[in-house]
Amino acid sequence: MVYLAEFVGTAILILLGGGVVAGVSLARSKALNGGWIVVTFGWGMAVAMAVYVVGSTSGAHINPAVTLGLASIGEFDWAQVPGYMLSQLAGAFTGAVLVYLAYFAHWKVTDDPDAKLGVFSTAPGVRNPVANLATEIIGTAMLLLGVLGIGANSGFVSPGDADLSGLFTNGIAPLMIGLLVLAIGLSLGGPTGYAINPARDLGPRLAHALLPIPGKGGSDWGYSWIPVVGPLVGGVIGAWIWKLTGFGA
Amino acid sequence: MVYLAEFVGTAILILLGGGVVAGVSLARSKALNGGWIVVTFGWGMAVAMAVYVVGSTSGAHINPAVTLGLASIGEFDWAQVPGYMLSQLAGAFTGAVLVYLAYFAHWKVTDDPDAKLGVFSTAPGVRNPVANLATEIIGTAMLLLGVLGIGANSGFVSPGDADLSGLFTNGIAPLMIGLLVLAIGLSLGGPTGYAINPARDLGPRLAHALLPIPGKGGSDWGYSWIPVVGPLVGGVIGAWIWKLTGFGA
Amino acid sequence: MVYLAEFVGTAILILLGGGVVAGVSLARSKALNGGWIVVTFGWGMAVAMAVYVVGSTSGAHINPAVTLGLASIGEFDWAQVPGYMLSQLAGAFTGAVLVYLAYFAHWKVTDDPDAKLGVFSTAPGVRNPVANLATEIIGTAMLLLGVLGIGANSGFVSPGDADLSGLFTNGIAPLMIGLLVLAIGLSLGGPTGYAINPARDLGPRLAHALLPIPGKGGSDWGYSWIPVVGPLVGGVIGAWIWKLTGFGA
Amino acid sequence: MVYLAEFVGTAILILLGGGVVAGVSLARSKALNGGWIVVTFGWGMAVAMAVYVVGSTSGAHINPAVTLGLASIGEFDWAQVPGYMLSQLAGAFTGAVLVYLAYFAHWKVTDDPDAKLGVFSTAPGVRNPVANLATEIIGTAMLLLGVLGIGANSGFVSPGDADLSGLFTNGIAPLMIGLLVLAIGLSLGGPTGYAINPARDLGPRLAHALLPIPGKGGSDWGYSWIPVVGPLVGGVIGAWIWKLTGFGA
Repeated sequence: MVYLAEFVGTAILILLGGGVVAGVSLARSKALNGGWIVVTFGWGMAVAMAVYVVGSTSGAHINPAVTLGLASIGEFDWAQVPGYMLSQLAGAFTGAVLVYLAYFAHWKVTDDPDAKLGVFSTAPGVRNPVANLATEIIGTAMLLLGVLGIGANSGFVSPGDADLSGLFTNGIAPLMIGLLVLAIGLSLGGPTGYAINPARDLGPRLAHALLPIPGKGGSDWGYSWIPVVGPLVGGVIGAWIWKLTGFGA
Repeated sequence: MVYLAEFVGTAILILLGGGVVAGVSLARSKALNGGWIVVTFGWGMAVAMAVYVVGSTSGAHINPAVTLGLASIGEFDWAQVPGYMLSQLAGAFTGAVLVYLAYFAHWKVTDDPDAKLGVFSTAPGVRNPVANLATEIIGTAMLLLGVLGIGANSGFVSPGDADLSGLFTNGIAPLMIGLLVLAIGLSLGGPTGYAINPARDLGPRLAHALLPIPGKGGSDWGYSWIPVVGPLVGGVIGAWIWKLTGFGA
Repeated sequence: MVYLAEFVGTAILILLGGGVVAGVSLARSKALNGGWIVVTFGWGMAVAMAVYVVGSTSGAHINPAVTLGLASIGEFDWAQVPGYMLSQLAGAFTGAVLVYLAYFAHWKVTDDPDAKLGVFSTAPGVRNPVANLATEIIGTAMLLLGVLGIGANSGFVSPGDADLSGLFTNGIAPLMIGLLVLAIGLSLGGPTGYAINPARDLGPRLAHALLPIPGKGGSDWGYSWIPVVGPLVGGVIGAWIWKLTGFGA
Repeated sequence: MVYLAEFVGTAILILLGGGVVAGVSLARSKALNGGWIVVTFGWGMAVAMAVYVVGSTSGAHINPAVTLGLASIGEFDWAQVPGYMLSQLAGAFTGAVLVYLAYFAHWKVTDDPDAKLGVFSTAPGVRNPVANLATEIIGTAMLLLGVLGIGANSGFVSPGDADLSGLFTNGIAPLMIGLLVLAIGLSLGGPTGYAINPARDLGPRLAHALLPIPGKGGSDWGYSWIPVVGPLVGGVIGAWIWKLTGFGA
């Protein structure tokens, strides 16, 4: 049941998140050139809605970096980590297929293969592996710090509580998690497009490679390890900053 | 009383929703070229305000796809379905007349007949009936999934409760429903302009056909079945995904 | 005390509301050409913040149309109406003086006198008294309907309660009132710039006439009655729609 | 512990706040030219997230003007003022270093040295010390008035309570504080870029002077006293307006 929830939640995340990138970048879309505010609000609200739908079931990690970070500080059961991560990856792949279908008529009329790949996966503004990795680490550390802070300060979950699944079951926390992702996107999304989530990048990249997208280019596998490794490292760092500072105690 | 509420709620939805499209597209409007963020926030807040005004009376479906979806999973009384739908259609027509009046001085100074029709009804970016239908189905399925998720996770309604009308009577849920429509608009509105509501498209299209709008063109009746059929199908699918996954149990 | 609160609240409204128009339209401002989303969010958040500061003291009408509308349906004491309205007008004038000071260095470097007047008062996109009046009436009726709906549905005030001042004392209602004004601005602001508040237009217009603004033009007194009469009429209509539909009962 | 919280909170503020300016102004960033709505939402959400993370520990002043203003009306212990202020300054410096790292690959590819300085510190649109000082005073007075109003009206803190640290520990107040900063930015940010916080300007300016930023220009120390003195004066004025009007009593 929790695995189904992670699957559906991550599918919603990518349907709405990948969807907004398709909206602003594919030809003849009504959202074309909607700009960075549209992209960042789209991803932020995608997170919020995914959390509303599956939060009370699985805690709505919908992100292997969140799962790993929570587990690393003892706030999540290690035994469930592999199942959560695989469900998230499968959900992200499925969400990308849904974006492909929702924008079905727009692939053929769009010329730029980079725009098509951008609907699925992130790419850096300046290609520099060390800098790109640092950006993803900083962004994801901020994500975990924020998730734990919202949980502890939204007045509904006791911070020391090992079961964080209650974090998402009140009325306001899911929106706040979405606004946290809005904040990270607005502020730290510039250099790499803020994957801050290995499943968010890898699942749709697989979909890009497999789907019969007219006029697509390569799937840029050379970059693909950065939005996986960076978020996983950053997630653990962020969770440990929270634990070591003791703000939640 | 509930029918009056659905009538007024849907009129507010269209007054504010059609209004924002008029604002960004009619000549000499101060909101001209406000962009996709203005359009999507306008519709999102239109929904939120309609729900605040009539939510505690009728549950504020203001959308036949919501009414049908809820009824299909046993969360709404079938006997009220026809009355709800007719009230919604009549309210949408009335809201469109109010938009016509609020922007009265701007029809004459605007040249483009497509811009005028766009204030009332949706049109696809790429005309492709199957793809357009799929987009509306996916968007409306997301709408129902989100509505049910927000209801179950906003901490005020017990998920298994057959009477969902309480969903909208707390302080935060109406805003969340509005943000859900913002999310769908940002992310899935690109291809078809996200009707995701048969009354929202059909009522104003009737108003466009009947009102003495200077320099108007045809009402594009050839497309009009898609934003009716797509949302009705998608609403049922979304409600059943919710029921079958058991997230609300 | 309540009069001081209305004075301060309306001054905050105009400081932040007039300020955002100055920001997007005066030369060498960092917000120059920020667009309609900046203007409408600026006014919406101006309302929300004014309500947070003075809401628990006076109910934060900060608008003669709200005061008159509430009084007309028996939800506000007629004896306080003149004092509320005068305080609101004086507060709006004071707020406009603060905008003048906050943007002091920008008046001289801006050439367009219409842009300068626009910081203070509204003007129609198409000059048509009947249509402009209708737009202001519709917008303000929506404002009152929304204020009353938010009060009744935010779960904190019993709808039939004659004392609506409690409406603004919980955590969420002030934000919702701000988002209501955001909604009206986005959707119905295009034709006339949405005064929907006689004090908001008249107080700053007086300030424009009296302040030593370099290179200012006339204060367009010929139009000035519309944003006074329209909102007062619309406010009463909106309040009575609420009362007659009985949604709050 | 409270000092560590102020340090971390202010570092988050600058990481996300400086980050959004970097995003919209450094070459080859994906947020390039995102506009004023991106900048103001970025800073607003930066504040909200900083408050969520450290609010329940230190009250999340993250601004010497807030600390001084609260102390001046007896709502904060003078003995802690120096420690709070130094922690905020050190946190702001650290946050700026993190922005430097997160956008590491973008300094070299950006030509304009003013754009680089703008990521760290504010600069006026029109250089006029008296007017610039007035703008910062008005903006920061509004900030304190808003912070105290949100605390008193969010329904969770008794207004006369000497210990305001509870202000930030409920679910909604941190977001409202963020939206207050959004409001001030939208409306009063045009002339000087709204420092409204001495640490926010001085800490990053020091970082700009010390960091090895490729192609940087001077750090504009001649202007640097205004965003320090203005906010401190404005913060005290705003706090005293609150106290003297008695709205919180």
